[in-house]
Amino acid sequence: METFLFLFEMLGTIAFAASGAVLGVRKGLDVFGVCFLGLTTACGGGMVRDVLLGNTPPAAFQNPTASAVAVVTSLIMFLSGVRHLLMGNQRRYDLFMLLMDSAGLGIFTVMGVRVVWNCVEAPSLYLLVFVGVLTGVGGGLLRDVMAGDMPYIFVKHIYACASLVGAVICGVLRQPAGEMTAMLAGAAAVFAIRCLSAHYRWNLPHPNA
Amino acid sequence: METFLFLFEMLGTIAFAASGAVLGVRKGLDVFGVCFLGLTTACGGGMVRDVLLGNTPPAAFQNPTASAVAVVTSLIMFLSGVRHLLMGNQRRYDLFMLLMDSAGLGIFTVMGVRVVWNCVEAPSLYLLVFVGVLTGVGGGLLRDVMAGDMPYIFVKHIYACASLVGAVICGVLRQPAGEMTAMLAGAAAVFAIRCLSAHYRWNLPHPNA
Amino acid sequence: METFLFLFEMLGTIAFAASGAVLGVRKGLDVFGVCFLGLTTACGGGMVRDVLLGNTPPAAFQNPTASAVAVVTSLIMFLSGVRHLLMGNQRRYDLFMLLMDSAGLGIFTVMGVRVVWNCVEAPSLYLLVFVGVLTGVGGGLLRDVMAGDMPYIFVKHIYACASLVGAVICGVLRQPAGEMTAMLAGAAAVFAIRCLSAHYRWNLPHPNA
Repeated sequence: METFLFLFEMLGTIAFAASGAVLGVRKGLDVFGVCFLGLTTACGGGMVRDVLLGNTPPAAFQNPTASAVAVVTSLIMFLSGVRHLLMGNQRRYDLFMLLMDSAGLGIFTVMGVRVVWNCVEAPSLYLLVFVGVLTGVGGGLLRDVMAGDMPYIFVKHIYACASLVGAVICGVLRQPAGEMTAMLAGAAAVFAIRCLSAHYRWNLPHPNA
Repeated sequence: METFLFLFEMLGTIAFAASGAVLGVRKGLDVFGVCFLGLTTACGGGMVRDVLLGNTPPAAFQNPTASAVAVVTSLIMFLSGVRHLLMGNQRRYDLFMLLMDSAGLGIFTVMGVRVVWNCVEAPSLYLLVFVGVLTGVGGGLLRDVMAGDMPYIFVKHIYACASLVGAVICGVLRQPAGEMTAMLAGAAAVFAIRCLSAHYRWNLPHPNA
Repeated sequence: METFLFLFEMLGTIAFAASGAVLGVRKGLDVFGVCFLGLTTACGGGMVRDVLLGNTPPAAFQNPTASAVAVVTSLIMFLSGVRHLLMGNQRRYDLFMLLMDSAGLGIFTVMGVRVVWNCVEAPSLYLLVFVGVLTGVGGGLLRDVMAGDMPYIFVKHIYACASLVGAVICGVLRQPAGEMTAMLAGAAAVFAIRCLSAHYRWNLPHPNA
């Protein structure tokens, strides 16, 4: 379980850091800016969550592993080969961002749910979902606001909605199926919903539609 | 008093949620984005305040009523009848935003003052005003930054100033007039100042003036 | 030591408040907006730090001195003489912003390091640097995001990097040289690196370079 959680968190960190770093590269930031944006995206959601739950100082402060992984990931995104691969082709860039961002969203959503399990006794489903969604979308929100973009959450197909569904699945499955299965199922659901919605261009109703 | 506080908070929540949702509709967000922006505007100021005062987890996490009210309000704003009513006419849109935002500003300012009364003994007027203004302007600030607009607080006639005056009135009146009167007077003052300043186009000195 | 810390903090507050206020003037904000942006820049980094470390309510709430200094500084920046001096000439404006922002960055970085010394026993260098950089860059980041600009940290020569070097110097020098010397050396290093990098147009590698 320990190992699973560690690997799971690293995967989410790498995915979110990559999405932040690639956005930074696209915005023409220098190497430090790219790392900073990668780091913020990867650690931002968790920090917001810890502060809101009163778990201060946040986990990211006490343990440099996730930060180090995020910085190394950002540096790799900055390498000229990787840059050319992703920037030369709009479709490839969009696909990469979709996959990374969706993986991060799914993993951090269920990690948020898990933190509530750990620090609140008999939490309501409302609390689980609230904290899960916030942890999931927080990093991407910070990334987009700092980079001066309209947040993904407002413009992309089914975004926070996917996180919400994943948090509910994770919350509901814990009792019957165990923590690990619940987390994997929740994260997989988020990832699948995001990819399907992007592929089939599902959209929630728009005012102009 | 209990009932009064509850109704008062609901009124503020509805007003701020409506202002956030209508801005979301104007920006062309989908239904989830509109709800999310409404929710953030309504709960944002209180969450910032609770985090700063160390009251974690914030009240919004423990009690879903305000969140539910904010989401329902946002959904109503999204209904096509309401949308056409507000979007078809710039003056009507501006008036609606002014009324909703001013009501929310007034109510949340005095709610912020009240939280300090409750959790700090013999607070200074400075602390009362600081927290009151922060609670009042916090939600709108988050709304505008996330929607990519220049915050209201920077461009509108007498905005934070109104909140400041209301917080002072509320803080000063408590001793002689009682909590409820002080809160009503403070909120009414904010609302009145905002509306009068918009109507008579009062402005604070501008650099270019 | 007490006096030194007080003067040091005031100097940082004035510098950051001036940078925020001048940006506000340039954006055409009214007098309250200018003060609010000055106040946010001066107190923002420290508030973010205190919240993250769980030192709530933040120091800025309990002691109005720094806030008062920030507001007075902002008002001075708003005076028409000062405004014309700075706005009439792009080079003078850039130089002023560079000096103020760099002084604030240096001072708040080492103040952040100092807070960790005070409230954590035997802190790791990682924690010192993390909190130092966050305190240093936090105020400017809030300033730029609220004013709708791309944050300085992303576009300017060697910004967070300077803060990082200063935090390391400050953290390493404490044992051999004493707190005061360490703080002065750290702040001076940040200031020097920023000015040198601006003058010689040092840049970290850019993707397009």
